[in-house]
Amino acid sequence: MLSPTDTADHPTDAGHHAPHPRVTLIGGGPGAWDLITVRGMHALQDADVILTDHLGPAPELHRLCDVDAKQVIDVSKLPYKKQTSQEKINSLLVEHARAGRAVVRLKGGDPFVFGRGFEEVQALSAAGVSCEVIPGVTSAVAVPGLAGVPLSQRGVVHGFTVVSGHLPPGHERSLVDWRAIAQSGATIAVIMGVRNAGAIADALHEGGLAADTPAAIIQEGSLATERAFRCSLGSLAETIEREEIGPPAVYVIGEVAGLRA
Amino acid sequence: MLSPTDTADHPTDAGHHAPHPRVTLIGGGPGAWDLITVRGMHALQDADVILTDHLGPAPELHRLCDVDAKQVIDVSKLPYKKQTSQEKINSLLVEHARAGRAVVRLKGGDPFVFGRGFEEVQALSAAGVSCEVIPGVTSAVAVPGLAGVPLSQRGVVHGFTVVSGHLPPGHERSLVDWRAIAQSGATIAVIMGVRNAGAIADALHEGGLAADTPAAIIQEGSLATERAFRCSLGSLAETIEREEIGPPAVYVIGEVAGLRA
Repeated sequence: MLSPTDTADHPTDAGHHAPHPRVTLIGGGPGAWDLITVRGMHALQDADVILTDHLGPAPELHRLCDVDAKQVIDVSKLPYKKQTSQEKINSLLVEHARAGRAVVRLKGGDPFVFGRGFEEVQALSAAGVSCEVIPGVTSAVAVPGLAGVPLSQRGVVHGFTVVSGHLPPGHERSLVDWRAIAQSGATIAVIMGVRNAGAIADALHEGGLAADTPAAIIQEGSLATERAFRCSLGSLAETIEREEIGPPAVYVIGEVAGLRA
Repeated sequence: MLSPTDTADHPTDAGHHAPHPRVTLIGGGPGAWDLITVRGMHALQDADVILTDHLGPAPELHRLCDVDAKQVIDVSKLPYKKQTSQEKINSLLVEHARAGRAVVRLKGGDPFVFGRGFEEVQALSAAGVSCEVIPGVTSAVAVPGLAGVPLSQRGVVHGFTVVSGHLPPGHERSLVDWRAIAQSGATIAVIMGVRNAGAIADALHEGGLAADTPAAIIQEGSLATERAFRCSLGSLAETIEREEIGPPAVYVIGEVAGLRA
């Protein structure tokens, strides 16, 4: 709930009072099937219909629930490839929920970290469908952590900024002030930023971050195919090119990327 | 692993090759017992000894594993109250691991988000004890999300900064540039910042954020005792005082705090 007067339009709270139609929006975590939450696993087990992306535990759903007893709908939106439109996803969610089915929407990471999760909550609300949210382990934090890079460390840094790198600095639709981020003193974790890594590194350097600021980049973190490399802000783009790193990947810029256990 | 040459000193990788002594460091999530990961639950079930804080699922461990079959050691560090020193925690971890026991260190949230988790990894490494890290759902993201506040939203904001508010702006040990954070355009999520909310809000306002910037504050998020309130940057401190909000709490400042489903 969000203050007494806000209760009525709060999606989670509304879910307790309106049994149908409803959807459960789950963050599936960074990739490994067992990095979903226990609550998320239980919701998958209780589901009749699962609409899933290709991220998170989707390829190993069978380890979490009896998939043969469920309708699993792949609504992957692969970058730069064929996409299922958001409108189509929303209408599928509404349609199945209105039919009285237990509907789960499974996303990678946390549903509200660049996942368009809240847009789906809003679309469902507009259609009279309530939505329970089950948060997830966000790749932006967990993927560096699994690779030995903590986003915070006492006496070193007291904050971190997670930013989407899907638009290059200076792009007309960019909402990111890279100069301010460079000057904030916080660790920087960029997701969806492989393609624009060179431009982002340049913008951070122009914003005041030294070229030798430690950096690390991790591809497919938490999976058996994980690849991770330490470098510096100045060598980030060439590391990505040399190692042929592709999405999904996270890179971290800041002193924490130079810490060793 | 972190590049071919770094493999040897990477804690997770080292864990695969050195069966003993070792510790598993688990992020327990924001509070509700079932917001731990499936992997974390399995590690608790396999543990002989569990060293736990008071945060995360600690009060309901019995829902996750057979606590009677384990040694559970409370090493809570309650703010402004009696504390177990970090050195004592480190020595307990090392002692039990060297005795050949399956040792779990359970923390709230994610172990590397202001949890001193990496300090424990470093202390263990120095003592020749390897450490597997199991990431957790961080309160900074999940608590607002559960209360209906997404930290990112397409077309509104493409990044968020998580910052510890345990030191007031201008404090000699503060590592946070609040002015730059105010100017970054990113959503701001502050944890451990109840006591310093007034000074932090003032610093963000002086940094350029309008007093009417939407804000939300959530106490004991994900628990049955959760209380949440929407306000503005300018009314954040008075809201905390009026509603007698105490830790643990998260506050969010930015346009996302004004979004409705």
